[in-house]
Amino acid sequence: MSSDALIDELHAGLARIAAPYVKDLQLRVLAASPGEVTLALPVTPHLVHGGGVLCGQAIMAAMDTAMVLAMQSLTPDHAFRPMTTVQLSTSFLRAVPADVGEVTLVGRVLRAGKTLAYGDIALSTPDGKMAAHATTTYALL
Amino acid sequence: MSSDALIDELHAGLARIAAPYVKDLQLRVLAASPGEVTLALPVTPHLVHGGGVLCGQAIMAAMDTAMVLAMQSLTPDHAFRPMTTVQLSTSFLRAVPADVGEVTLVGRVLRAGKTLAYGDIALSTPDGKMAAHATTTYALL
Amino acid sequence: MSSDALIDELHAGLARIAAPYVKDLQLRVLAASPGEVTLALPVTPHLVHGGGVLCGQAIMAAMDTAMVLAMQSLTPDHAFRPMTTVQLSTSFLRAVPADVGEVTLVGRVLRAGKTLAYGDIALSTPDGKMAAHATTTYALL
Amino acid sequence: MSSDALIDELHAGLARIAAPYVKDLQLRVLAASPGEVTLALPVTPHLVHGGGVLCGQAIMAAMDTAMVLAMQSLTPDHAFRPMTTVQLSTSFLRAVPADVGEVTLVGRVLRAGKTLAYGDIALSTPDGKMAAHATTTYALL
Repeated sequence: MSSDALIDELHAGLARIAAPYVKDLQLRVLAASPGEVTLALPVTPHLVHGGGVLCGQAIMAAMDTAMVLAMQSLTPDHAFRPMTTVQLSTSFLRAVPADVGEVTLVGRVLRAGKTLAYGDIALSTPDGKMAAHATTTYALL
Repeated sequence: MSSDALIDELHAGLARIAAPYVKDLQLRVLAASPGEVTLALPVTPHLVHGGGVLCGQAIMAAMDTAMVLAMQSLTPDHAFRPMTTVQLSTSFLRAVPADVGEVTLVGRVLRAGKTLAYGDIALSTPDGKMAAHATTTYALL
Repeated sequence: MSSDALIDELHAGLARIAAPYVKDLQLRVLAASPGEVTLALPVTPHLVHGGGVLCGQAIMAAMDTAMVLAMQSLTPDHAFRPMTTVQLSTSFLRAVPADVGEVTLVGRVLRAGKTLAYGDIALSTPDGKMAAHATTTYALL
Repeated sequence: MSSDALIDELHAGLARIAAPYVKDLQLRVLAASPGEVTLALPVTPHLVHGGGVLCGQAIMAAMDTAMVLAMQSLTPDHAFRPMTTVQLSTSFLRAVPADVGEVTLVGRVLRAGKTLAYGDIALSTPDGKMAAHATTTYALL
């Protein structure tokens, strides 16, 4: 399957499964290969708090979504296999200014076992600096 | 200060500071004392994903907000002291069904140092069962 | 089963299963009930680093051991059920001085599912202050 | 400074500062550059539990030590700058058999701020498979 076809499938899966609260993030898949996806998150005023920076809540929501899509990219038919987040831990390394345009997330599956999967997600600003990093464990149902 | 007055101040702080994305959660402060707050999160269809349960992204967003309010409750005048989340780690223990009504979060500050603070947050369904648990570190600026 | 009998079984399990590296901690079970154990960790010079405080490595090792014992206390015959740590996250809240004597750990199972279990562990100095806190997920094999 | 000279300084720092409990791990620095170190951890019987695998307590202890050394490699004179672990989170991905010989840890500083630093550590078996992964936050004093 070409990368473009995989991207289309991930977008379709997101449209079908994600809560409206997640769709509000307006995430776009920029690139995808089995076990790794790159997403763009537009830093809209909707996601910016009174301190003038991207709110951590939106960052965590995008982190989790990136890993769901990275997991989906690994399944044979790129279907959403039933799974649940066991644990997600996010570290916030730099504030993301409101005028940055959009940020990029790269989610990678580091270990896909039979019942548990583990991965990390890096969120970077357009200058290439990592602004947040997450690790996560999923249970496959 | 009475608990009711503190609740009013926390609501006012949330209205002034929170990103629209966080306000979409429609969190309400049910109880507050210095270093501990109890919030209600209505499980609206907006927060439910295709699997029919409250999405983890909304849970994490509510967890973070609960700790911001618990920290605010500790400051002398209950003002939002400038701070930033360093790390937030959430464990998901049970799925929260879409028809549960609302869930309750209790955020507690366990350690408030000069530069760093640490706390935990428990999210429970109406039957009293813990459905998610988070720990978090904040940096005071 | 009395608490004393349970304590004896936990000590026996530890003696049989733990690595010598863990036995070096000289942990003692002070109290135990199903799903909760209290341990004492002597702060010996062996565990103190050049900065004159209990090293974090010993703290984490004791944290993990506390949860293994708390899980064992839940099994019908208090046998060591085969399990593996999926994730352990420790936050260090206060330095523990070398001359403190011993510290106390309370490990609690917060959720025991069929395949995964979750708990937390608090480490306190004799003055009752929490010095470290951990959360952990176990997989039952 | 050559890599060999840096390795010598890290070994000297470890000998001077580490608790005996950490020295028991017999960690060796294999390679070092500013912000990244590679360590070898011999899987000795001392570190193996009754299940016949490297105990998680030794893994976490080595993880923490790897990051201390990676931080030291970043300081101008490679001195141990006073710092403290704020948080360390380890995920265990695969059991490490007792007969594996030694495992390798790569610790990387991903963000070194003025007061906080963040990094990750990967532990791999000789076949190149990642067996454990940790992330950690340090406070610079």
